[in-house]
Amino acid sequence: MAYQLLKGKKGIIFGALDDKSLAWRTALRCHEEGASLLLTNAPVALRMGEINKLAIEVNAPLIGADVTNMDDLNKLFTGAMDHFGGKIDFILHSVGMSVNMRKGKPYTGLDYGFNQKTLDISATSLHRVLQTAYEMDAISKWGSVVAYSYIAAQRVFPDYNEMADAKALLESVARSFGYYYGIKNKVRVNTISQSPTKTTAGSGVKGFDGFQAYAEKMSPLGNASADDCAGFCAVLFSDLTRMVTMQNLFHDGGFSFTGVTEAVVREFEKNSDIPVK
Amino acid sequence: MAYQLLKGKKGIIFGALDDKSLAWRTALRCHEEGASLLLTNAPVALRMGEINKLAIEVNAPLIGADVTNMDDLNKLFTGAMDHFGGKIDFILHSVGMSVNMRKGKPYTGLDYGFNQKTLDISATSLHRVLQTAYEMDAISKWGSVVAYSYIAAQRVFPDYNEMADAKALLESVARSFGYYYGIKNKVRVNTISQSPTKTTAGSGVKGFDGFQAYAEKMSPLGNASADDCAGFCAVLFSDLTRMVTMQNLFHDGGFSFTGVTEAVVREFEKNSDIPVK
Amino acid sequence: MAYQLLKGKKGIIFGALDDKSLAWRTALRCHEEGASLLLTNAPVALRMGEINKLAIEVNAPLIGADVTNMDDLNKLFTGAMDHFGGKIDFILHSVGMSVNMRKGKPYTGLDYGFNQKTLDISATSLHRVLQTAYEMDAISKWGSVVAYSYIAAQRVFPDYNEMADAKALLESVARSFGYYYGIKNKVRVNTISQSPTKTTAGSGVKGFDGFQAYAEKMSPLGNASADDCAGFCAVLFSDLTRMVTMQNLFHDGGFSFTGVTEAVVREFEKNSDIPVK
Amino acid sequence: MAYQLLKGKKGIIFGALDDKSLAWRTALRCHEEGASLLLTNAPVALRMGEINKLAIEVNAPLIGADVTNMDDLNKLFTGAMDHFGGKIDFILHSVGMSVNMRKGKPYTGLDYGFNQKTLDISATSLHRVLQTAYEMDAISKWGSVVAYSYIAAQRVFPDYNEMADAKALLESVARSFGYYYGIKNKVRVNTISQSPTKTTAGSGVKGFDGFQAYAEKMSPLGNASADDCAGFCAVLFSDLTRMVTMQNLFHDGGFSFTGVTEAVVREFEKNSDIPVK
Repeated sequence: MAYQLLKGKKGIIFGALDDKSLAWRTALRCHEEGASLLLTNAPVALRMGEINKLAIEVNAPLIGADVTNMDDLNKLFTGAMDHFGGKIDFILHSVGMSVNMRKGKPYTGLDYGFNQKTLDISATSLHRVLQTAYEMDAISKWGSVVAYSYIAAQRVFPDYNEMADAKALLESVARSFGYYYGIKNKVRVNTISQSPTKTTAGSGVKGFDGFQAYAEKMSPLGNASADDCAGFCAVLFSDLTRMVTMQNLFHDGGFSFTGVTEAVVREFEKNSDIPVK
Repeated sequence: MAYQLLKGKKGIIFGALDDKSLAWRTALRCHEEGASLLLTNAPVALRMGEINKLAIEVNAPLIGADVTNMDDLNKLFTGAMDHFGGKIDFILHSVGMSVNMRKGKPYTGLDYGFNQKTLDISATSLHRVLQTAYEMDAISKWGSVVAYSYIAAQRVFPDYNEMADAKALLESVARSFGYYYGIKNKVRVNTISQSPTKTTAGSGVKGFDGFQAYAEKMSPLGNASADDCAGFCAVLFSDLTRMVTMQNLFHDGGFSFTGVTEAVVREFEKNSDIPVK
Repeated sequence: MAYQLLKGKKGIIFGALDDKSLAWRTALRCHEEGASLLLTNAPVALRMGEINKLAIEVNAPLIGADVTNMDDLNKLFTGAMDHFGGKIDFILHSVGMSVNMRKGKPYTGLDYGFNQKTLDISATSLHRVLQTAYEMDAISKWGSVVAYSYIAAQRVFPDYNEMADAKALLESVARSFGYYYGIKNKVRVNTISQSPTKTTAGSGVKGFDGFQAYAEKMSPLGNASADDCAGFCAVLFSDLTRMVTMQNLFHDGGFSFTGVTEAVVREFEKNSDIPVK
Repeated sequence: MAYQLLKGKKGIIFGALDDKSLAWRTALRCHEEGASLLLTNAPVALRMGEINKLAIEVNAPLIGADVTNMDDLNKLFTGAMDHFGGKIDFILHSVGMSVNMRKGKPYTGLDYGFNQKTLDISATSLHRVLQTAYEMDAISKWGSVVAYSYIAAQRVFPDYNEMADAKALLESVARSFGYYYGIKNKVRVNTISQSPTKTTAGSGVKGFDGFQAYAEKMSPLGNASADDCAGFCAVLFSDLTRMVTMQNLFHDGGFSFTGVTEAVVREFEKNSDIPVK
């Protein structure tokens, strides 16, 4: 069910890869809520071609941009303002990639060249997007920017490797830039910390299935789906959340504030081979 | 602008006193968003009579209930289910009162009988409401409960006195009961931590004006108004936030994540009579 | 190994019951670190008699006091200042009891009379102690007050029942009173959030063993013991932590900032009967 | 007053520049507490020569190392193990530098090459130090690593610029590596979030004086000095805090948990030119 929450609003969606992506689901939802969209992703992702289907479905132009390249971002925002005939109302940043994980390097054996790339793609990219928009004055007054994050920014989930640090940096960038953009033009910047979601990217994480099962059992409402997340994100783009900024908002069925569930404790009473002191 | 976010939903609003109340503004907004409402407040508040105007405006019945009295709460929920012909979809708890503040007692000189009343009225009352509903199975699957809180639950604001402790307790009750009600029936429970708002209750706080001016200068987007808060609360009652639970959500223009603003630092450079070490 | 960290300091220890108690272990440690002590507990606990052994071991007088009774607390502080011939340097509050848990009532079926007692004994008691001391000006400049807490104040651990709310209230009282006592006389107030510890009190919690096994597997350093906790508490009483106040300090082998360990995820991969989405 | 807290322990101190440095004060304190030390800093800092005085005072060898250079770090740890004839018990990381601030660039106009350097020097350097030690197995069982941080990692302090993001990243690295090193060898890793301190580095921050005056007025115990910080750090290196890990510990006279002080509110009542709504 849709509510026309974003009627008349114009937004840019970064990071839709295939129909399991959080960005893909969010684009669909924003479209249903009445927004006009423009899609962007890295040139390599565009060449995969899947995103063309989404572009047709939500009637949105597609502009390739490497989020670590300021020229690309400049062209993207120029193209977007051209296309929309004015400023942008909202932006979704759903971008992240761990080069060390891809290369099979553990957290205690990082390659620092890879790590620098990971941080640039996954976190500094949000600063690049915001700085580009800020310098071009490309976001409307009371505009809204959201980046997708993960609770590994607060607590350690070992299989998440260097992405934990990237998400902590991402959330700090959102908070910091949210301050300056709020002062300047009432633009708000937040992150959503979403349940583990079986996207094509998420599946690549070692131990993902075991962890997702654990998270499901540790969340009183269960894990939030990609479509749930899309609806929540639409809310953050809407005028109903104008005074929410510089925050990280958990969207996880209660996982973040649950220390343990009875289901998990009972499993440990049953299975644990640890002798209790 | 309204979106029919709450179309077909039935809710109970606790705590509307006059047209400056957060609960009053929230009732208006929920009505605009398509909800059917029932209003309740303490018998003494009902006798003031103002709330009758709201009842007419939002076309809602009015049932008096002392939130520290389990019989009253039972009658309220029985009455509500009768009136609605079924379960309740959402509840707003906007109730709080510091007896020690009223009596002019400082935090370091509390009367413990008064303090016990303050905690019961302002925090345990949420448990009473939830336990009553839980035992009667009065809330629909995926129902939503919100209580209004304040950042004094996390950091000290001296003029807020014992209400800081009451709000910390309130937020803990929301989190704890959110776990059990989530497991049982997917009901979510959250608190909204709102900017200082000049309600009739808020005005009674010593130093309120100085503090509100400070909060305004310390919030990149300025203080959130009661109407802003009402809109955000409607979102939390809607199906768009089904997976958000056991949380305290700041709604404060960025105050909570701002350490200091340039405006405040400059004021201290100008005025401070503290010799810098 | 001891360091004479508390040489010349005088302290009151609330809540030693038997030699497994956190308060008992802390008293021993403070004694080894050179402090002069006075012990107190509820009259009923005194009648058990165990505490006399501790009193002899640490060469401390014993004064009974019901922490919910202001007359008792007045007599206690008067007696302590008499005994020490001056002000008190540190206080340990290790007091907590859930009446509803004792009576077998679940969190969703609380008796509110019992709940009021639980909050008074476990949380408001810290306010009572501090207010008594504040009014009598009984704590030395740069004195230190510590109360033992538990992470259920931040996240839900279902078997912990209403004690979660009591600990949240306790931590708020520490923070709030820490502000006023800091301003007045540089006295600091903190809580220590300790690993689940198999004390006589802790053992009474349903599901304690399963939970402790889980916590052990979820803490990179394992659970902290009562003696570890005692050493950390001695640090907070010493002059080495003079600028630490209004905080809740986790002492838990890393549990609080660990989202999950590999050991736990592997257990879920092996045992979980939840179908992964 | 010293307690021989670190008797027999061997430690490396990164980042002492001159006698106002946090690292300098910490080295002095660790020496007083009985530790054997080795000092290190960037070659350029060594050439300034001040650090030689400290080396003499604490009887420590001095090895230059660029914290962004893995060869340098390898040589440093090899040299340290050689010198000490065994493993290292504790490490202080007191390293940070914002290239953009030096170049006068605002947060909304960062140079990303500079930013990458800032993150590498101020945050990734901790990972480099830990990874080097981890691979060489250079830290004793129950060893302790501390890095100095600042509350800008949690809330925005506009003059702190990109260093806020660097500190958020630093704290995440401490947490993440603390997990792995805890599992492997019981090594703990924490950060201390210290009051604004007028070091030579701190003085370079625009608006530092106004901000320090504000922090002084916002801290119930006043700002913590560099010597206070040194004492607290010695505690974290000692055996008294073995079970504290993966944390950020505030050492700030209560600043972090104070929302506002009466002193600040009164100033706003007096001076504020903001019309209260």
